[in-house]
Amino acid sequence: MRPFVFVNIAMSADGKISTRERRQVRISGNEDYLRVDRIKAESDAIMVGIGTVLADNPSLTVKSPELRAERRAAGKDENPIRIVVDGRGRTPPDADILHKGSGKRIVAVSKKAPKKAVEALREQAAVVVGGEETVDLRGLLEELHRQGVRRLMVEGGGTLIWTLFEQGLVDELQAFVGNIVIGGKEAPTPTDGAGFLREEDFPRLRIIEAVRFDDGLLVRWEVERT
Amino acid sequence: MRPFVFVNIAMSADGKISTRERRQVRISGNEDYLRVDRIKAESDAIMVGIGTVLADNPSLTVKSPELRAERRAAGKDENPIRIVVDGRGRTPPDADILHKGSGKRIVAVSKKAPKKAVEALREQAAVVVGGEETVDLRGLLEELHRQGVRRLMVEGGGTLIWTLFEQGLVDELQAFVGNIVIGGKEAPTPTDGAGFLREEDFPRLRIIEAVRFDDGLLVRWEVERT
Repeated sequence: MRPFVFVNIAMSADGKISTRERRQVRISGNEDYLRVDRIKAESDAIMVGIGTVLADNPSLTVKSPELRAERRAAGKDENPIRIVVDGRGRTPPDADILHKGSGKRIVAVSKKAPKKAVEALREQAAVVVGGEETVDLRGLLEELHRQGVRRLMVEGGGTLIWTLFEQGLVDELQAFVGNIVIGGKEAPTPTDGAGFLREEDFPRLRIIEAVRFDDGLLVRWEVERT
Repeated sequence: MRPFVFVNIAMSADGKISTRERRQVRISGNEDYLRVDRIKAESDAIMVGIGTVLADNPSLTVKSPELRAERRAAGKDENPIRIVVDGRGRTPPDADILHKGSGKRIVAVSKKAPKKAVEALREQAAVVVGGEETVDLRGLLEELHRQGVRRLMVEGGGTLIWTLFEQGLVDELQAFVGNIVIGGKEAPTPTDGAGFLREEDFPRLRIIEAVRFDDGLLVRWEVERT
């Protein structure tokens, strides 16, 4: 048993999530900012890869005081459980995700993570160890399910999203497509990693919803079970 | 004066146009195949970059006998003028685009193209020389306008599309977004090249149309004039 896993991305019309310098750019507007805050508040946990932590240092807290109050009223922590997938234990001990806002944190590491780094992280977060070289994502999701996580939001980056798709662990993809062109062979995209080579391996999607939203386009796809 | 320039792409939900091996994959279905054939038949010329010629060897002919007959009835050639942007004159003399179907061909080269290659190409196509190191695209578009081209379709690849956007030469972007995930840091995307670095340089788009189409999504954006 694992949680329902949905991936949330914002990309340009040409499929980029930032410039080749990996500088965060404004792809969506205020309406989408509120939407993302809401779907975050509705999730039991939110997950990012270590690359995103190192590049953007996000806190992943719920921003709206109303949504935080709603969570408290429902007997939950103000923020969903924040999870970093971090095979080598490289999360900086002063990362915002470990310090800003209340609520639980989990850093998922592999057996390859240096003991010292793991010990330092244990002072800030629950550490889950699984996988030889990289984090055992399926095992991590099963562990999260045991801890009560039913709805998991994945906020990036491209390597984590790719790996989840590769292992068949994604149920839904939500994309805000912004009205800009970024370009760049080296610009990061929603799914980096190795990529699929054979058409029979491509995950197949089905559109749930496609609406004009916030000067852009919001598309929700469910991933077909194979 | 230059023609109206529209770019047509088909990409996966995660913004890839093929696998990292650059193998052509089926992103859209029959309905979109017919749509692309129709917008091609409605264009005065169709343009690709040399990378696409070398990778895919497309003929870029109009496939439908009915659409070809319509063009003939309107006093036109069966196929739009087929144009290769080929700075160094690397188009293989036996490329399908130079041989399949009737109608004019233009190979646009820069002054850096070897004389011998240009001479060989002149036996198969009109050769337009312009630009020192790379093709002077603005000059090429002006020349095409003088030759009567009013509506130009751009079929790729990522480098040509990027360069056209960089130089402010695109009027419309049409994207078919297919219901698949391809993934891959190295997989080609609709706009390769250097990419924009500053938000103020991003081309801004406005959605003309976004409709569910052929199991995917068809989006048409106009490029805002700056």
